[in-house]
Order: sequence, then C-alpha cells, then structure tokens
Amino acid sequence: MAKKYPSQPAHVTALQMPSLPRAKLAPDLQKYFAVCDEKIGFLPNVLAAYAFDEKKLRAFIGLYNDLMLDDSPLSKLEREMIAVVVSSANRCYYCQVAHGQAVRALSGDPALGELLVMNYRAAKLTKKRRAMLDFAHKMTVTPDAVGDADRQALRKAGFDDRGIWDVAAVASFFNMTNRMATAIDMMPNEEYHAASR
Amino acid sequence: MAKKYPSQPAHVTALQMPSLPRAKLAPDLQKYFAVCDEKIGFLPNVLAAYAFDEKKLRAFIGLYNDLMLDDSPLSKLEREMIAVVVSSANRCYYCQVAHGQAVRALSGDPALGELLVMNYRAAKLTKKRRAMLDFAHKMTVTPDAVGDADRQALRKAGFDDRGIWDVAAVASFFNMTNRMATAIDMMPNEEYHAASR
Amino acid sequence: MAKKYPSQPAHVTALQMPSLPRAKLAPDLQKYFAVCDEKIGFLPNVLAAYAFDEKKLRAFIGLYNDLMLDDSPLSKLEREMIAVVVSSANRCYYCQVAHGQAVRALSGDPALGELLVMNYRAAKLTKKRRAMLDFAHKMTVTPDAVGDADRQALRKAGFDDRGIWDVAAVASFFNMTNRMATAIDMMPNEEYHAASR
Amino acid sequence: MAKKYPSQPAHVTALQMPSLPRAKLAPDLQKYFAVCDEKIGFLPNVLAAYAFDEKKLRAFIGLYNDLMLDDSPLSKLEREMIAVVVSSANRCYYCQVAHGQAVRALSGDPALGELLVMNYRAAKLTKKRRAMLDFAHKMTVTPDAVGDADRQALRKAGFDDRGIWDVAAVASFFNMTNRMATAIDMMPNEEYHAASR
Amino acid sequence: MAKKYPSQPAHVTALQMPSLPRAKLAPDLQKYFAVCDEKIGFLPNVLAAYAFDEKKLRAFIGLYNDLMLDDSPLSKLEREMIAVVVSSANRCYYCQVAHGQAVRALSGDPALGELLVMNYRAAKLTKKRRAMLDFAHKMTVTPDAVGDADRQALRKAGFDDRGIWDVAAVASFFNMTNRMATAIDMMPNEEYHAASR
Amino acid sequence: MAKKYPSQPAHVTALQMPSLPRAKLAPDLQKYFAVCDEKIGFLPNVLAAYAFDEKKLRAFIGLYNDLMLDDSPLSKLEREMIAVVVSSANRCYYCQVAHGQAVRALSGDPALGELLVMNYRAAKLTKKRRAMLDFAHKMTVTPDAVGDADRQALRKAGFDDRGIWDVAAVASFFNMTNRMATAIDMMPNEEYHAASR
Repeated sequence: MAKKYPSQPAHVTALQMPSLPRAKLAPDLQKYFAVCDEKIGFLPNVLAAYAFDEKKLRAFIGLYNDLMLDDSPLSKLEREMIAVVVSSANRCYYCQVAHGQAVRALSGDPALGELLVMNYRAAKLTKKRRAMLDFAHKMTVTPDAVGDADRQALRKAGFDDRGIWDVAAVASFFNMTNRMATAIDMMPNEEYHAASR
Repeated sequence: MAKKYPSQPAHVTALQMPSLPRAKLAPDLQKYFAVCDEKIGFLPNVLAAYAFDEKKLRAFIGLYNDLMLDDSPLSKLEREMIAVVVSSANRCYYCQVAHGQAVRALSGDPALGELLVMNYRAAKLTKKRRAMLDFAHKMTVTPDAVGDADRQALRKAGFDDRGIWDVAAVASFFNMTNRMATAIDMMPNEEYHAASR
Repeated sequence: MAKKYPSQPAHVTALQMPSLPRAKLAPDLQKYFAVCDEKIGFLPNVLAAYAFDEKKLRAFIGLYNDLMLDDSPLSKLEREMIAVVVSSANRCYYCQVAHGQAVRALSGDPALGELLVMNYRAAKLTKKRRAMLDFAHKMTVTPDAVGDADRQALRKAGFDDRGIWDVAAVASFFNMTNRMATAIDMMPNEEYHAASR
Repeated sequence: MAKKYPSQPAHVTALQMPSLPRAKLAPDLQKYFAVCDEKIGFLPNVLAAYAFDEKKLRAFIGLYNDLMLDDSPLSKLEREMIAVVVSSANRCYYCQVAHGQAVRALSGDPALGELLVMNYRAAKLTKKRRAMLDFAHKMTVTPDAVGDADRQALRKAGFDDRGIWDVAAVASFFNMTNRMATAIDMMPNEEYHAASR
Repeated sequence: MAKKYPSQPAHVTALQMPSLPRAKLAPDLQKYFAVCDEKIGFLPNVLAAYAFDEKKLRAFIGLYNDLMLDDSPLSKLEREMIAVVVSSANRCYYCQVAHGQAVRALSGDPALGELLVMNYRAAKLTKKRRAMLDFAHKMTVTPDAVGDADRQALRKAGFDDRGIWDVAAVASFFNMTNRMATAIDMMPNEEYHAASR
Repeated sequence: MAKKYPSQPAHVTALQMPSLPRAKLAPDLQKYFAVCDEKIGFLPNVLAAYAFDEKKLRAFIGLYNDLMLDDSPLSKLEREMIAVVVSSANRCYYCQVAHGQAVRALSGDPALGELLVMNYRAAKLTKKRRAMLDFAHKMTVTPDAVGDADRQALRKAGFDDRGIWDVAAVASFFNMTNRMATAIDMMPNEEYHAASR
C-alpha cells in the first residue's frame, strides 16, 4: 500500500537509541501514555523518543505539563501560539506540525495555525497578543537584545510581571525543544497533518 | 454567521486602489478569469489585485504562465516546490498558502507541502530535487554568493543548462511575487486552506 | 589588441543555451532590438540572454516596459533609483552597472549613481525619495518584516496607494532580475562603464 | 560601604514576582537549598528566582539535574563547556558567569572558561571536543540548518548516538535557560566572579 | 552655477570640529600636503578631516603610508583591491569612491574598480587574488570565524606568512577607516568620480 | 611542570615571521619596551608580534598611544570600555582578555569587565555611557546603517562633536586590531587572566 506521506522520513528520530519497550515502563508512565492514547488518539513521538530513559522522560513531561497545561495568566491557546511562532522562527518541523495543529484545534480558526507558521506578522491579532508574539519572536532571534524596553512593551500591552514570566518561559521552552527535535531529526506523528483543518 | 478564518485580514490587499469591475475588463481577460473560476473554483486574489490595470495584469499573467505552466525541463510539481521553498525563506503568507496547496495537490502527498513551508531540509527528497531546492534557497537568502560552484552542483545532480535556467527563473520570479504580496499585504483566497489535505 | 576590461568575464551568461540567431526572431522582436540599437546604441545583454526563447523574451519585455517605461506616479529616474538600491542590496553586478548608468544619465548627477550603488544612506535626498528607498531596501533585505507601519511611512512622505503599488512593484521586479542575473552570471555590456560620467 | 560590583544590577530578576519565603518551601526543597548552601557556598539566583512557585522550581531542578549531574557519556566538564559556548553565542550574562566559573573549576584551567566565553574557536581543544562545540554552536545560531552531515561529523569524531543525544540535549537546555535569564534580566550571584581564577 | 554632484553632501564631515588652518600646520605636514596637491591634484578629504590635530594626522599618515605605499609582498594594486572589497562589504561611501578610483588607475581596467565595489565574486581573477579577497572579505563580515583553515587556504594559493600578515593588516586597516568615515559622514573629493574611467 | 593554561595556544601568533631580537631594536623602541616591562610587568604580545618590523611597530604604537593614552574628552576607562564592547561584538580573544583586564583595573569593578565582554546591555551604566557603547556597537556590527540619527543620539546624551570623533576613532581602531589579532591568531599574555579580579 502506498505510504500517505512519502516525503516525511519514516523514523521517530535519526538516532539509533537503546530502546525501552513501552510495556517495561514504570506503571505511572504507562498510565500517562495510556491517557495520551485516549485523549489525543496516539502517543506523540516526542514521548516515544524520550522513553529510552525514564528519568529524562519524567523531566520532560514535568516541565511540559507545568508550562503548557497548568495554571497561567496565559490561556492554553496563547501558549500554543507562542509555541508556533518560536518554532517557525527556528524552522522546527516537528513543533510546527504538532503545535500548529494545537492552535487550529484550540482556536477553531484553521488559518491561525497557518499564519503563525508562515508569518505571524500577517495575522489579525489583538494588540496584546501581537505584543506577546513580538516579545517571543525577539527572544528567539536576537535574545541578547532583549531588555527593559521589551518588558515595558509587554506591561503596556496589559501583561503583569507574572504574565511576562510565562511568556518568557514558554518561548524559552520551545527554543529548547525546537533545537532538540531538529538536532535528532524528530518526526511528528502523521495524524497531525489532516487534523482540525 | 461567524467568519471561518477570523485571524486572516478580510481585504485582498492593504492598498485602496482605483478599481476596475470585472465586467469592464477586455474580453480576453474576462475569458481568462472565467477559466480560473471553472478550473480552480475561484479567482485567485493575485489576479483580482492586478485587475485595476489591464497592462499590469497581462504582464503578470504572461510571465506566470510561461514560467509555471509552459514547457520546461522541470515538472509542474518541481516548479511549485521551488515556489514554496522560496516563499518560505521570504515568509510570504500569500504564496506559501497558495503554492503549498499546489504542492499538496500535484504531489498527492500533503506532508510535502508542509515540509516545504516549514523546513525543506527535513524532507525526504531525491538528490536531484534537494540540489534544486538548495540552489533556489541560496539564490533567495544570499544571492550575492551564488557562483560557478553552485551551478556545477546542479549539473552534477543531473540538470543541463536549460534546466538551470528554469530553476533560476522560477526561484527569481517568486522572489518578486513574495515581496509584492507582502509589501501590499495580499491575502490568499480562503479556499486554499482546507484543500488537498 | 588588449581587452579593455579584462576583469569582466567575456560571456553574456555562464550557461550554454540553445541559441536563436537574431535574424530568426519574429519581426516584432527584430524591430524591438533595432530600436534598442538605435536608442541605446547597443542591444542590452539581458535581451540577448532571453532571446533563446521568444515567449520568455516577450514576457520579460512586457513586464519591464510596463514597470519602467509606462505611466506611473514615479518618474523614470525614481524607478531607476529603486532599481539601483535593490541591486546594491543584492549585490547584482549586471543591474548595478546598467541601472547605475541610467541613474547617472537621467539625473545628470554622476555621483548619484555611485551613492546608490555604494550606500544610498549617504546621499542627500528629499525626504520623499529617502522614504521610497528605505521601503525598497527593507522589502529587499527583510521582506517578512514589512508591514502597515512601513506603508504608513510612505503615505506620510507623500505617496498615495497607487504610488506605493509602483514602489513595491519596481522593488519586487529587481529582486527577481538581480537573482536571475547572478544565478546565470549575466555580464553587462561594456558600453555602460564609461557612459554618463 | 562601597558595593563591590556597581555595574551589575542589584536585583535577582527585573520582574516583581509574588514571593515565597524560603522557610515556607516544602521540606524537600528546603533541604535541596541547604545542600546548595553547603556545597556551593550560596544559593544560585536561578533557584531563588524559580522559588515563587514550587512546581516550576521542581520542574527546573529535575531537568537540570538529569542533564548536568546524572550519568552521561559526556563528562561534567564537557557539559559545562557546551553550556558556556551556547551561552556565549546567545550572550546570556547569567549563564556565562555561572557556567564559566564551573568550567574554570572543573578544568583547573582558568583560561578555558575565558576562551569559551570569548570565542571557543580560539581554544586548543581535542578534535572530539571541538566537534562537540561546533555542533552545539550550530544548533544555537542556525538550528534550521542542522542535518545528517552534522550528526555524521559527531559520529566521525567519536560520539555514538547516545552521546549525540546528550550533546543535543545540553545545548538545547541552555538555549532555553539563556533566553529565560535574559528575558527577565536574571543576575548571577556575585560570588562567581572571583572564584577559580 | 549648478553644483555638479548635488546628491553628495557638501561637507567634509558631519562634525563641527575645531579647525586648524593649513597654513598653521607644522612645516613637515604642510610639505606633505603640498606633495598631495602635486601628485594627486588635490588634498584628499581624509587628510583635511584629520588636520584639526597634528598628532592624529601624523598617526594616520604613518600607518597609511606603511601599509599602502611601503614595501610589501603585495603589489600596490593588490592592496587597493583589498581596500575596495572591504569597503564594499562595509558599504563605506568615501573609501569605495577613493580606492575604487585607485584600482581603476593602477589596473588600467576601469571595470575592475566597479566589480570590486559591486560584487568581487563576479570578477575574473587569478586564483591567488581570489583567495586574497575571500580572506579579506571573511575577516570583514565574520571575523570571529577566521581560523587555521583560512590561513591555510592563503598558503595554498601562494602566500607565505609575511604575505598573510599584509593581507590581514590591509584588510584590518580598512575596517577601521570605513567605520571612521561612515561614523562622521566623511565625503570624498569630487575629483575621484570621473577619474580613470 | 604543568602549563597553567593548557587550552590557550602557546604561540604569540600563528604566523612564522622573520624575527628581530629585542636587543636589535632601535634604542627608542628598546626603551619603550622597557617601560612596558616596568609599568605593566610584561611586554604585551601585540608589541612582540609587531616587532619584526620597526616601521610597523612605530606606526602601531603611534596610533595606539594617541587614541588610548593621549588627551581626550573620554576618560581612559571609557576608551577601554569601548575597546571591550567592540572586541566582544567581533569576538576577538586577545582584545577581550587584554582590555577586559584594563576595564577591571581602571574601574575597580571586576564585574564591569565581565559585563562588557558578555553583554554590555546587561550592565548598569549612566545614560551617557550606554549611548556611547550603543554607538560603538552599531558602528561595529552594522557600520553601513550609522547616520545622522546616531550622531544626534550621542549629542543628546552629552557628547560634543569632538567627543563623537573620539568615540568613533576608538571604536574604529578596535575594529582594526580585533581583525588583525584574530586573522593571525594572536594570543594574550597569560598574566592578564588573574589580574584585577
């Protein structure tokens, strides 16, 4: 049978890693994976990639869940918007695919995912969200030039310092994951492509 | 009724231009637009944007059709692949949307459109196509550094000089249209978004 | 006899292309070339390069003449000034030579051609022309960052939207021709060098 | 009394955050801080900064300890070398100060910390370490260009795929922390400056 | 009477400096200026600019004469070629005008001056001179990336270490003068423009 | 005995140059070197490097002393601050080490040297000094973009035109020495590392 996406490499990552079968993971991690299966419909490849080492997997999940799913002055959609803009600036294929889909799903506006992948400056956004994305973009491409004026611009747009922390933390996180995913050539699950169009 | 894509600006372009109603266009242009309606299902916004001036419209159509639809050593898909890679490097929203859809449609591989928009280096491609896209990308981002070694790399990958001309001409063309579309904030027809997924 | 310009490659382009003798071109194209001979004193190499294919030659001439010679809110000199600034940013040898000469000839100010080739920011210009060149330069080097504020700056400097279209269209056109000329190593006619000094 | 370092801002970060007194932290975190006091001689400001939220603090500590202190094919010094090279490329003041000191301490070669802060290419290194730092540097400044050839260069220099994972993971981590520290203007403890010279 | 070059600012520099009339300069400097008048036909503006301070003037002349006029493994033309390529990379108007003219005069090939101003990569050069200019260009645009491989490339092209010193020293010098000239908006003497065409 | 700084190459420069024993130098230069020995405690390697040619050595000393030690509206510390910021932008190892030490010594604030090496934007500075360093930094990284607005910013911050000259001259000088030092891989004397911490 023809492969649906022949242009996407078939591997999870380009590295040959020692592997740990899912059935050998600790019970809490097996349960976490089962929840993914149920809620998302599949296990995101990033989790499969980290599963060779339980400590690394737990550390990744711990940070991801705190930033993207836990309480924050930013909505989940806003955090996903930052994820896509940062991933676009870094041109990370995995993260643009996975978080582009999340933006489409959470916003109910499929074009928003495309706009943030392609050029967030072309999108029609509230001033607050535009300021948020401008900050995240600048942190990504010229981190050494971020300073008081940039923080002040966020405050003027309506963010308090607790909000600035989360804008900074989410943008920083994807500067990590983008580089990790590209460095090991991590490929996204094929299910993301057609979803939420 | 809710707008389906609230994040995409509603205009065709950001400029307030003298307009020429479609019904007043010369018969050959009206016919050309009618063919678009029939074959594509709608009139691409780029043509609507140029329609304020029949000479400009004809000049654009003449060049576009010669490069993208006429005889060439490059297949139509290959020309669209160049279009997307160049448009991604320049981050042109209009062209990534419209030509990303063309790549999805012509290739039957929806991920290929995504890969070329997001990072063509992550795609699984033949060596010949990778060389073609590397050349188009370099022409786009560091045009002053293109030289004999780059042309020689295309020859080594299987292109003859007539083929190099077309790779260069198509890549050059989208460096024009990308800048024009961004400079006037041209928005793509909404129909592209969900097509060929 | 010594070649006057030994450092300039002797070819029209670096590609070995199927050639079409000038005498075999369609009558209208032969006539167009004859007009060039008469008005310019020689046939510009760009036309010789495109002459291997009548359709490509016509498409190029059609677009060039509309943009550079037809009616426009921009004077011919202003369009040539944009040509040189864009070509300088892209470091295209052919276009800087040919259009630098055009600026010298049209302005009667030989230093203006030099200034625009070398660093347009050092030139003494009206505010309107400086704004025009700033826009063209930004479109060339960071096209993805062009937005409403840039269009607004042109309006503030005295351009209406019809004028913005032409600034954008001319700057876009030379982003195409610069890349084409460099990609195929097109060499300018030697006559340009000493003219209008 | 004169402040010893008047040019270094006195705050821990530029944000006014809700604060959690150290004495109110959970016992395990209090104990962790006490171990820092004892082993390092002070509590690193990054931990003080995260202490406003126990979950964020735990997530940070979890990831940091796994990457920098747990088992790895890379020595602790090598991981710190990557930290400094990445932080230098991003020009993060906090991380260059703190990890520059770590390199000085672990290597017993104070100039090594300086070289990696100032220009790692000037250092006398083994080929393996140079390859490791070249990979980390490229991931940092042009992440989208990292590909198979870069991974292959690491393999040729002596890294297996498990080692490549850790080079990538450590370099990615500091691309996160650098941006976080700069975005909130985090200042390093003054004790680092004179240590291990 | 119309100014011949209205687009070139009329000042020597944009700074209002304390001035020292030429007649008050020390005799050796007056004599040096008289030699310039005679040999060049005018006093180069760079000397007029420095003449507000005899020590600065002497230091500049001392370094300039040693590098550009004294014994060297590089011919005077080669040193001027480096001057133009560096000045083009830095887009210094003064130095491109003045040293572009020197290249035209010394080479007897007016196009060579244009090529080096516009894009030295388009010029037909010996391998040795191309290597020399590639080194000077890289030193200018990415000085931190110059290393052993670059010095080795010069050696392979035929330079000994004494020659490498002079390539480096001349390229370095123009990285100084380019920035000084641009920072104070120094304008070249109008006589350069039409000379040696 | 173990070398204290094994990561720093042992040579003065990477070039094999004809050498002139110190004892054969002209008496005035021998005396100059003796003063260095006494005041600094050692002969800076940059002087040793230039000592193969008395004229080059004198030209370098002449310019250096005029700019860095002679009368100026800028204090010696301010000139050294510019030296470090420029050298950091160019990532010159020699100059960051040597002039970083000078900043530490002259300011009595060891962190100031570190801040200027690592990211001068993180330092707590007077507005005047920040403006001075912003100008020097912009001259270094985008010299072609420096213009009237930048000079005006210096005037607004309190510099008169004589002061602007010196800011420009010092920043320009280190753009020369940085490139020379990196191009020949000049290594700093080891004594700088531990001094003034």
